[in-house]
Amino acid sequence: MKPVDEQLKIIRRGTEEVISVPELKEKLSRKKPLVVKAGFDPSAPDIHLGHTVLLRKMKHFQDLGHEVNFLIGDFTGRIGDPSGRSKTRKQLTEEEVEENAKTYKKQIFKILDRDRTKVVFNSEWCLKLGTEGVFDLSSRYTVARMLERDDFLNRYKKKAPISIMEFLYPLLQGYDSVVMKADVELGGTDQKFNLLVARDLQRSYGLEPQVIITMPILEGLDGVDKMSKSLNNYIGISEPPEEMFGKLMSVSDELMWRYYELLTDVDHRAVKADVESGKAHPKEVKAELAKYIVTEYHGGHKAEKAGKNFEAVFAKKEIPEEIPEFFIEQDKIGIVDLMRETGFAASGSEARRLIAQNAVSIDGEKIRDEKARITPDKKGKILKVGKRKFGRILKA
Amino acid sequence: MKPVDEQLKIIRRGTEEVISVPELKEKLSRKKPLVVKAGFDPSAPDIHLGHTVLLRKMKHFQDLGHEVNFLIGDFTGRIGDPSGRSKTRKQLTEEEVEENAKTYKKQIFKILDRDRTKVVFNSEWCLKLGTEGVFDLSSRYTVARMLERDDFLNRYKKKAPISIMEFLYPLLQGYDSVVMKADVELGGTDQKFNLLVARDLQRSYGLEPQVIITMPILEGLDGVDKMSKSLNNYIGISEPPEEMFGKLMSVSDELMWRYYELLTDVDHRAVKADVESGKAHPKEVKAELAKYIVTEYHGGHKAEKAGKNFEAVFAKKEIPEEIPEFFIEQDKIGIVDLMRETGFAASGSEARRLIAQNAVSIDGEKIRDEKARITPDKKGKILKVGKRKFGRILKA
Repeated sequence: MKPVDEQLKIIRRGTEEVISVPELKEKLSRKKPLVVKAGFDPSAPDIHLGHTVLLRKMKHFQDLGHEVNFLIGDFTGRIGDPSGRSKTRKQLTEEEVEENAKTYKKQIFKILDRDRTKVVFNSEWCLKLGTEGVFDLSSRYTVARMLERDDFLNRYKKKAPISIMEFLYPLLQGYDSVVMKADVELGGTDQKFNLLVARDLQRSYGLEPQVIITMPILEGLDGVDKMSKSLNNYIGISEPPEEMFGKLMSVSDELMWRYYELLTDVDHRAVKADVESGKAHPKEVKAELAKYIVTEYHGGHKAEKAGKNFEAVFAKKEIPEEIPEFFIEQDKIGIVDLMRETGFAASGSEARRLIAQNAVSIDGEKIRDEKARITPDKKGKILKVGKRKFGRILKA
Repeated sequence: MKPVDEQLKIIRRGTEEVISVPELKEKLSRKKPLVVKAGFDPSAPDIHLGHTVLLRKMKHFQDLGHEVNFLIGDFTGRIGDPSGRSKTRKQLTEEEVEENAKTYKKQIFKILDRDRTKVVFNSEWCLKLGTEGVFDLSSRYTVARMLERDDFLNRYKKKAPISIMEFLYPLLQGYDSVVMKADVELGGTDQKFNLLVARDLQRSYGLEPQVIITMPILEGLDGVDKMSKSLNNYIGISEPPEEMFGKLMSVSDELMWRYYELLTDVDHRAVKADVESGKAHPKEVKAELAKYIVTEYHGGHKAEKAGKNFEAVFAKKEIPEEIPEFFIEQDKIGIVDLMRETGFAASGSEARRLIAQNAVSIDGEKIRDEKARITPDKKGKILKVGKRKFGRILKA
């Protein structure tokens, strides 16, 4: 195992909060693999990049030699959400939960190491709790402390209903940590309260409390709301490379840096400086990000292809609606001749210079060879020279 | 079955509140035996007169032809009270609960009809609930409504801890009513909140809500606190007749009327008027009450004996601390001679007259035979003549 400080550096990268660092140091210093836990909702098995913020942190632990547990909260899923607030948490049948678990497994091993990941289901121990177990569990926490949770307190004050069942959920989630003897629990910042409850419960059961690590919540493509399936502002990790690439290219320049930070291990500080000083073009830097992420899920080859495809489509999109049409008599015509005939180049040498500058394209594909020959057709091909000059080349 | 109005009159006598009378009328008018439920704490099987207020009301229902259920909250007993507030609700083993149930049964049939009483245990269905059942149950009630209970709200405001388990108890108690399909639940006024929760839960499970009938809480011997074992201000219904009689005679004249109302079916209004007008002596009326109650648990003969015993003991208690001592030479002495020798009677005829007036006693026991002979001893015997004259008779 790596030295504690080195491990700490990797673990802390990109985290929102670690409670507490001294406790984590202490646990790491024992040189034994830590039991790392992260819980996932069984009703939304379509993993998107938002989930990967956590999964990637789990992978870091895994790479450092720790025991990573992917906990599927299937018991929770079987119960459903009584508040009716969350549309994603509907009551699931046993079959649906199983199906969802399979779907999860298909996806997570794109990030996690299959052989070193324990996939566990909390129904295993939750069902065993029984009436007496739930009562015992509920005796270990007070109403007042539960009402300290912002969400609960706000609803209580607003007289919005809170079902008593909602008080049991955090306890059950905490009980997972008790049974698993978790050393570390990872979760989104929105899970902080529940993660803390688990710490208290572990203490109450006479165990050493887990260290909690919260990860920032990834914004969706809109850059405003949390990435989520229900808001349709997400990128699923099983989406085709072209979809993924295109969606990534659609994020704002500002959000791009956030994605760099939370979805890659790239140190992007230098690139960011280049963009700010005008040395690098944001669109290109974004394409780099997209390639990096698509490569993670589809491999380098497909990422490259997706990048090209995007450029082509993107280029097409830039064509103005009204462009001049040029009817060509010949079946084939050299690019230099074409540029002179359309008037996009004043001379053959200017045409050649523009081609050498990568400023010429046909249907979004750059023309790099001055000897390239074009075949005009009835549909028309788009000749683009520089940033602004467009022409539709048609067979006469 | 008796006509509805007649039943209503008997049922409503002595109750604190009926929610609601129209619902009760409606249920009674169906001419089918109602399922009547009352729950008892399994940790305090020593039934005292405080419990009999409820038991007597159950008996009324029984006499009217309804189905009476004596519910032992054994599940609750197995869990214990996490708040630690109530010293009487400690966690019980299965064996203890069974033992307590036996003790209950031994006692309650002094009031209830053994053949027409169902003794039920809520662990039967509570254990079957399981984790999922408890969650489902807890989804049917809100935190805000639970916090409306005075006790909870006060503690919440005072920042005194309320365990989440305490929110589950009323739900479980309500679930009893769901499973039993209770038509009527009886309880003390302190149970009103829980009885109402049960109504809501029955509705939530698609059942007709139970009518709730609250009975006043009986004050203990001190006339201040609720009668309870832990406060040691109680009269157990298995106590010996003498104990019972003596304790009943110790209550205040004011409390006596309360006991008449809640512990007997006697219409005491006339007697009360007599006492108020001075026609009747409160002590005698109290002795009547004591005899009535002791008869209920020990039969008329023992009640009579207990009454006499009390009088004797009571008489002894009236002996002043400083009384003259008389040393007698003889081994035995006739009562008339003794009275003359002590000077408590001026003549044999006065002594005989006093004996005939029941004014003479030795050690609290009335002397009715003028030929009675007394055996003086070293310990001394108390001779009492009239209300005020006392003498200690000793062997010289």
